Amino acid sequence: MSLKTNTQVVLSSRPSGFPEQNNFEVVNVSMPEPEEGQMLVEILWLSLDPYMRGRMNDVKSYAVPAKIGEVMIGGTVGRVLRSRTPRFSSGDIVEGPLGWQTHAVTDGIGIRKVNESVAPVQANLGILGMPGMTAYFGFLDVCEPIPGDTVVVSAASGAVGQVVGQIAKVMGCRVIGTAGSDDKVNYIVQELGFDAGINYKTQNVGEALRNLCPYGIDVYFDNVGGLVTDAVLELINVGARIAICGQISQYNLKEPEQAPRSLSLLIRSQAKIQGFLVFSYENRYQEARDRIARWIDEGKLRYKEDVVVGLANAPEAFIGMLKGRNFGKALVKVAD
Amino acid sequence: MSLKTNTQVVLSSRPSGFPEQNNFEVVNVSMPEPEEGQMLVEILWLSLDPYMRGRMNDVKSYAVPAKIGEVMIGGTVGRVLRSRTPRFSSGDIVEGPLGWQTHAVTDGIGIRKVNESVAPVQANLGILGMPGMTAYFGFLDVCEPIPGDTVVVSAASGAVGQVVGQIAKVMGCRVIGTAGSDDKVNYIVQELGFDAGINYKTQNVGEALRNLCPYGIDVYFDNVGGLVTDAVLELINVGARIAICGQISQYNLKEPEQAPRSLSLLIRSQAKIQGFLVFSYENRYQEARDRIARWIDEGKLRYKEDVVVGLANAPEAFIGMLKGRNFGKALVKVAD
Repeated sequence: MSLKTNTQVVLSSRPSGFPEQNNFEVVNVSMPEPEEGQMLVEILWLSLDPYMRGRMNDVKSYAVPAKIGEVMIGGTVGRVLRSRTPRFSSGDIVEGPLGWQTHAVTDGIGIRKVNESVAPVQANLGILGMPGMTAYFGFLDVCEPIPGDTVVVSAASGAVGQVVGQIAKVMGCRVIGTAGSDDKVNYIVQELGFDAGINYKTQNVGEALRNLCPYGIDVYFDNVGGLVTDAVLELINVGARIAICGQISQYNLKEPEQAPRSLSLLIRSQAKIQGFLVFSYENRYQEARDRIARWIDEGKLRYKEDVVVGLANAPEAFIGMLKGRNFGKALVKVAD
Repeated sequence: MSLKTNTQVVLSSRPSGFPEQNNFEVVNVSMPEPEEGQMLVEILWLSLDPYMRGRMNDVKSYAVPAKIGEVMIGGTVGRVLRSRTPRFSSGDIVEGPLGWQTHAVTDGIGIRKVNESVAPVQANLGILGMPGMTAYFGFLDVCEPIPGDTVVVSAASGAVGQVVGQIAKVMGCRVIGTAGSDDKVNYIVQELGFDAGINYKTQNVGEALRNLCPYGIDVYFDNVGGLVTDAVLELINVGARIAICGQISQYNLKEPEQAPRSLSLLIRSQAKIQGFLVFSYENRYQEARDRIARWIDEGKLRYKEDVVVGLANAPEAFIGMLKGRNFGKALVKVAD
């Protein structure tokens, strides 16, 4: 009986400001049937990521917005239950954008088989998945770090930030992270090897950065925006490189935040601010995955997950993540 | 008797907001004498440039601030009156940073002989000088234009903007300039060959840009900042390149201007904002000068000067330039 039902979380209304539970609806629909060339996947893990907030708006973005009543978009890891396509076999563990649901039928485009020997399969939604790729290319390609550079990372205990900081250490940089709790700050320093951390909620970020960065800041990997970014810009060195990966402090505002203009600071520093999307690097994902896997193997990269169990808990966990309540990569365990 | 006196304009007090006449003082000092290894230069032309405003503040910049009582810093073209250095001869026309004065003694460091055959000598303070170099490297190196790109230039009739727009045409781009009067807009379109112009004082810049840039904006060369820049950022294409050359709208504010945060716009566009200083390209100035001279010769580059006569009028002309009252490269004719 339960095998006949596919449970989905759909967008039921568009949020204004932070999403709320009533923007989502859990619905049961009949189990989809794979046609010739398709396969049925049972979803095991769902990834929760800040970019999903943008899809809930009805505005131009790099992706088409979700429609009301549609399944929420999201990266997943699942198990092939039945395959009618030669590329995949029943029992394969796969990763791809199958959305907030317990089951999905797909033709396999954009889906890849997961190498189960490297790490637990859900790591393919974190350090070996989109957040890991984002950290790898955003840091190495956009920020062009040089050993000895002082690197600042915002949202440093998050799915992307924790990887950026550790790759910065691999690269021989000095790395300072900002995070929203003392536990997170302790984690990035004591567990991940960051040189220092700043609790942006309790500390004066500008003063802390001035103390921690006596030689100024060469690289800033920004997931957050807002006041942390303002404080960093005051301290950038000549030739500084700033990657804009996310601006999560701005995604849930009803009106754009007003702030002092800061582009003048780029002139004397001759600094670069560069936005990027990980998808541009798609043809190099294997390079990143291989290198990250090796670094994990060598003990140079560690990662932390924040897991909630059950698809019905996804909306609450997602809202919590947007408020910084997650500690590590936010994941929903959908099935065993 | 007059030959015994050197007239100087010195910084007498630091401005708050726009400079005023009383921030400057005209003083007469005794004529300096060149020692062995030095030369005496009679200044013929003084360049007035926005960067000078920054030197009047007592804050960290890419250059040491001017001290109270010191001669104002500035680029000049002059004639060697007496030389005790083998590199220069009496009668040579030279260009260098000799400041707001009628005469200067220098050891010749940072001074170069001007090629008088290319253009009137004062062009070495404009299209063949620092503003020309700024336009050349800021546009070609920082903005990396491609034929067919839609290019927007702010302060388009100014010393730098007019050169950027014309080089954009040489590069096969479509170029739109913003300026502060209908005369300036007519000039850039009718005389310099821009495809269109916008009077930012009388038009809605956002609406005008939307109409004039149906394919979005690929390159923005920013001299101004503020509302014009906000309007441009709303329309940037994927992969857009933005050079921050100046932010003249911000230089004379007593408090930083508040504006909606805009870094989120860089993510979907994967755009780059890059500040730059022309001095970084010093070892390539000859390349730029040769190419600009050829383009002038071929009739591809034209330029406009706004000349005031007499060193004592420099402060008023400088203040006017900061308010956008100049029309073309601002110059002071110090002597014949």
